[in-house]
Amino acid sequence: MKALWKEIAGRGLALKETPIPRVGDDEALIKVKVASICGTDLHIYVWNDWAKGRIKPPIIAGHEFAGTVVEVGENVRRVKKGDFVSAETHIYCGHCFQCLIGHPEICENLKILGVDINGAFAEYVAVPEKVLWVNSPTIKEEFASIQEPLGNAVDTVLAEDIAGKTVLLTGAGPIGLLGVGVARAFGATKIIVSDLSDYRLDIAKKMGADVVVNAKSVDVKKIVLDETHGHGVDVGLEFSGSAHALNDLLKSVRPGGRVSLLGLFDNSVSIDFNDDVIFKKIRIYGITGRRIFETWNIVSNLLNSGRLDVSPVITHKFPLEEFGKGMELMETQMSGKVLLIP
Amino acid sequence: MKALWKEIAGRGLALKETPIPRVGDDEALIKVKVASICGTDLHIYVWNDWAKGRIKPPIIAGHEFAGTVVEVGENVRRVKKGDFVSAETHIYCGHCFQCLIGHPEICENLKILGVDINGAFAEYVAVPEKVLWVNSPTIKEEFASIQEPLGNAVDTVLAEDIAGKTVLLTGAGPIGLLGVGVARAFGATKIIVSDLSDYRLDIAKKMGADVVVNAKSVDVKKIVLDETHGHGVDVGLEFSGSAHALNDLLKSVRPGGRVSLLGLFDNSVSIDFNDDVIFKKIRIYGITGRRIFETWNIVSNLLNSGRLDVSPVITHKFPLEEFGKGMELMETQMSGKVLLIP
Amino acid sequence: MKALWKEIAGRGLALKETPIPRVGDDEALIKVKVASICGTDLHIYVWNDWAKGRIKPPIIAGHEFAGTVVEVGENVRRVKKGDFVSAETHIYCGHCFQCLIGHPEICENLKILGVDINGAFAEYVAVPEKVLWVNSPTIKEEFASIQEPLGNAVDTVLAEDIAGKTVLLTGAGPIGLLGVGVARAFGATKIIVSDLSDYRLDIAKKMGADVVVNAKSVDVKKIVLDETHGHGVDVGLEFSGSAHALNDLLKSVRPGGRVSLLGLFDNSVSIDFNDDVIFKKIRIYGITGRRIFETWNIVSNLLNSGRLDVSPVITHKFPLEEFGKGMELMETQMSGKVLLIP
Amino acid sequence: MKALWKEIAGRGLALKETPIPRVGDDEALIKVKVASICGTDLHIYVWNDWAKGRIKPPIIAGHEFAGTVVEVGENVRRVKKGDFVSAETHIYCGHCFQCLIGHPEICENLKILGVDINGAFAEYVAVPEKVLWVNSPTIKEEFASIQEPLGNAVDTVLAEDIAGKTVLLTGAGPIGLLGVGVARAFGATKIIVSDLSDYRLDIAKKMGADVVVNAKSVDVKKIVLDETHGHGVDVGLEFSGSAHALNDLLKSVRPGGRVSLLGLFDNSVSIDFNDDVIFKKIRIYGITGRRIFETWNIVSNLLNSGRLDVSPVITHKFPLEEFGKGMELMETQMSGKVLLIP
Repeated sequence: MKALWKEIAGRGLALKETPIPRVGDDEALIKVKVASICGTDLHIYVWNDWAKGRIKPPIIAGHEFAGTVVEVGENVRRVKKGDFVSAETHIYCGHCFQCLIGHPEICENLKILGVDINGAFAEYVAVPEKVLWVNSPTIKEEFASIQEPLGNAVDTVLAEDIAGKTVLLTGAGPIGLLGVGVARAFGATKIIVSDLSDYRLDIAKKMGADVVVNAKSVDVKKIVLDETHGHGVDVGLEFSGSAHALNDLLKSVRPGGRVSLLGLFDNSVSIDFNDDVIFKKIRIYGITGRRIFETWNIVSNLLNSGRLDVSPVITHKFPLEEFGKGMELMETQMSGKVLLIP
Repeated sequence: MKALWKEIAGRGLALKETPIPRVGDDEALIKVKVASICGTDLHIYVWNDWAKGRIKPPIIAGHEFAGTVVEVGENVRRVKKGDFVSAETHIYCGHCFQCLIGHPEICENLKILGVDINGAFAEYVAVPEKVLWVNSPTIKEEFASIQEPLGNAVDTVLAEDIAGKTVLLTGAGPIGLLGVGVARAFGATKIIVSDLSDYRLDIAKKMGADVVVNAKSVDVKKIVLDETHGHGVDVGLEFSGSAHALNDLLKSVRPGGRVSLLGLFDNSVSIDFNDDVIFKKIRIYGITGRRIFETWNIVSNLLNSGRLDVSPVITHKFPLEEFGKGMELMETQMSGKVLLIP
Repeated sequence: MKALWKEIAGRGLALKETPIPRVGDDEALIKVKVASICGTDLHIYVWNDWAKGRIKPPIIAGHEFAGTVVEVGENVRRVKKGDFVSAETHIYCGHCFQCLIGHPEICENLKILGVDINGAFAEYVAVPEKVLWVNSPTIKEEFASIQEPLGNAVDTVLAEDIAGKTVLLTGAGPIGLLGVGVARAFGATKIIVSDLSDYRLDIAKKMGADVVVNAKSVDVKKIVLDETHGHGVDVGLEFSGSAHALNDLLKSVRPGGRVSLLGLFDNSVSIDFNDDVIFKKIRIYGITGRRIFETWNIVSNLLNSGRLDVSPVITHKFPLEEFGKGMELMETQMSGKVLLIP
Repeated sequence: MKALWKEIAGRGLALKETPIPRVGDDEALIKVKVASICGTDLHIYVWNDWAKGRIKPPIIAGHEFAGTVVEVGENVRRVKKGDFVSAETHIYCGHCFQCLIGHPEICENLKILGVDINGAFAEYVAVPEKVLWVNSPTIKEEFASIQEPLGNAVDTVLAEDIAGKTVLLTGAGPIGLLGVGVARAFGATKIIVSDLSDYRLDIAKKMGADVVVNAKSVDVKKIVLDETHGHGVDVGLEFSGSAHALNDLLKSVRPGGRVSLLGLFDNSVSIDFNDDVIFKKIRIYGITGRRIFETWNIVSNLLNSGRLDVSPVITHKFPLEEFGKGMELMETQMSGKVLLIP
């Protein structure tokens, strides 16, 4: 099969002919129909500091995908040949303290597909049954391939109730854009989105943003106050990983509001806990991964019901061979989700 | 002014010329633009058992309304002449245990507008400032007049998160129909509605129901299982006050689901707590009134944002003089909300 | 080994010499140090209607126990020979909808130890690793053997916050008595306990009850009002399975309070939903099993820290051979927990 | 009457003969039996930067107290002459957005007793009825005088469930010490307390700390890991206002844990959001004031029931005239709560 390998400690990936993986007793082999490029994949491609510290080449990259089960290991019970599946990419151990108390998403021995073990930028991928989610056969393959980041967006939006609330969402990258759609589908009544890219803000509008703000040119905090009778928003959703955006967000949330943090920051961030957290009595939620599989169930319901249309976020599609085009497009930030078709 | 009095202990109401109420120090006088008929008003009109036990004629009926403040008492601070207002009809005392711990909606000394004190089926009504909600001037008067039952619907739907959940809603009377719209606006991904009236089920569809079931002719439980891959719904919302519907609902909710109860029953209801509550580990929420004014804020956000369109529920409008037509229409159950215009 | 078999469809159990069970690949073999008798075991012993419908003899009874792992199957990873363990008795499938969304305690394919598969009233028992909880070696064996019902009590008490709340607990059987201790340890500030047995109410006092009421002779509702300045209790905990107690409880809980139901009823129960649930805006929680293993972790913390002393609940201890004495004692209700020592 | 005035913009307070305050229509006049010194009072005394920016002399200081109602204004209904009362010191407006949606504790127009209006370091104080809490007559006056900071401690501890959890509490000043007692009373199963003062750590032990750590000499994070099987604590409670302590706390909390922040910091604080918040999926709660009066009800239950004994925290008592001794003692940090008796 063809697979996209991180072979050397440096920029780039290499498409290589590779044996189809053998299926372990607890695994299924999946023929990949669509994969999608995550920011993590881009980090591995450009070989940034995080990648240098974490990735041990050679490894096949990629973790967001949808495909069909073609073979199952002998202990596999739930998943069957022919099932249309996607995968939770957090491969939890199942026996650590966190797994035992019901939080596999923060497993102490987490392995990540395409990071710690061979991934899905390939014609076939072998995945433990325990992280496979069986999709409805009626869901579009493209949509099914982005359920993992859509799950991030769902957990970020639903850290507390969003129904009837006003929202500031900072960072309209692909997951942030999914967050806009999720907030809209779940009844946020005013959604303000800030980013530095007009291209992405245009997509935000298509996903349901009521107000978009390019933070390069205007003061986000002022817009938020104008749009909320001077109160500030009920909810802040941070997808940008920008220290500046986080501080703006904390100042834009009303007393008694809440903030969810998904975006990762380059460094530590300094914030005014007294005025922006304590006196305002707000709650801050760190978000990582997705509830396995509670969140997947919500994601499926959203997609199967048609309540959320993610099409505007999927901006480009390439054959696997043209992965370089996709990676470079993502580097320019002139894209939403970029799909690869093996 | 003209006002609609319950004068005698028997069927009917009487339209009479009446002095405009004098405003107490803590009250505002409101010119009523639109009032809407509640099931409670119908009970008073037909003089059912509940009305016989509770109402002490003479009293002006009516509690759902929107209007304009024309005069304020000397202690009034928040509300001003010219404000477009509606009223929370639960007039709480402010000093009982429930009020002190933040639950005025279940005040121990609750008085109800149009039940315990003169109400809003009149050209003018005097209302304590503490229960007045100032509407956005841009909201339609008709919509503003039904915020009180819309608040019931919101609290019923939001007793727990509704986002991405499947729902069975029993009872498509006016509040149930608002509940359908609320559940849809807040992201329920499948909404099944049961009632005995095809007329009302048609409105339910317009409000966003995915599946409607006339419980006269089919087994609701069976439909629910068919529509939910055999699991049952995540959420049950009971607006009918029918013992049969409640039992169907409890059997239709999946293990781990939850149920909200708003509809009032004619008598005690017998249920199978073992199989339908305990072994299924469900939660049952009694719902009454609305959070004051937390729920009103959500209701305003829903209406102001246009996320919820309540027009299909408002089926009839009459001048105050033709109240009898409205009451008789509601008796036939061939209506949604019926409005009266003084 | 010796084991206690349900051999025939009728009253009684039989102690028989039996081969030590063989360990499956995913199982561990445990040498039982202490087992404790559950109400379920008594049902099996006396062969009541529930037992007739559910139990298929022959089967070894018993599910509450503590012991030492003496052998592990080849797929076992987390548990090691020599570990001091107890078992969650709800053997979940791991692949149904409920298991997938994080609720194995209400698994759709639940098997129960000592009910559906051979249990722990024996010198050895083979148990799937996935339901084994590794105890601290410092915890007393007797205490470790009753963690499963203690987990029921914890989930009943903690359905909502108990801290600083007033409580009525109905039913001072062994689990109810553990509930008294849990409510006390977790900061309930007034605990009223009702039962029909003075013997059990005496133990309730030792477990931390502030007020005990024999419902045979006095009106529980009246006592509750007297003890709570006329408000009613914040929290109702139902362990009795008595329809009468449930109705008393619902009337004794204050508006805005909550109720947890663990006790199973003989039949459907009729309640006044209007006055006792809806107008009071209370929440009712059906409780079954225990969160796996979230609740076990809380239980361990309680026992390891010494914050809860369960000794008063453990009233009798017999060698396995004298199981009949234990069963008959439990039938008289003149006992707390009865332990069997193989 | 005698009263303690902040007269000039500089260090110190002055005891002066002053007319007894006149009671407004909505107020009650209280004869102060016991007052207690808050950190805020000390700030006013030493005239730190916060005081310079906020206090407009002349003003009577003091806000924590208990006393007897001796006169009531004409609109006063709930409180009666002779009532034994304490006061919520957050005098909310009752008509802003936050007050309307049920959060007077973060009122947009908050006035604080002894900061914005004349306070309780005097023989008499006039207080709006709406912030008065009627104490049980059986509660000790000394205990009643510290309910306001005890309420801070309760809200900090109960931001999420504390039952059966392990805790790190940083900062054993008077409120932190009350927090230790509250965490213990509400069932925390291991309480680790860090501070820089051995004197205060000794009191922490008396209040129920299991482990005390002087952060001057040892690494708090290491102790926490040793005491929690390497997992970290479930709950972090920050009362110190030290940036260093906050960072230690965030690193000491286990993945999935939560943190409450009450202590105020001198400056912005830099934290590693990626590793300490997001990847760990923790929740951070800003805490200010107390739920009015939901928290007061819990505080009363704690004190009335005797479940919490706050005596060890009350280390000194002086006549009002000797206020200088009290202030200087607090400056040295060689005290718990210091009471003043008018």
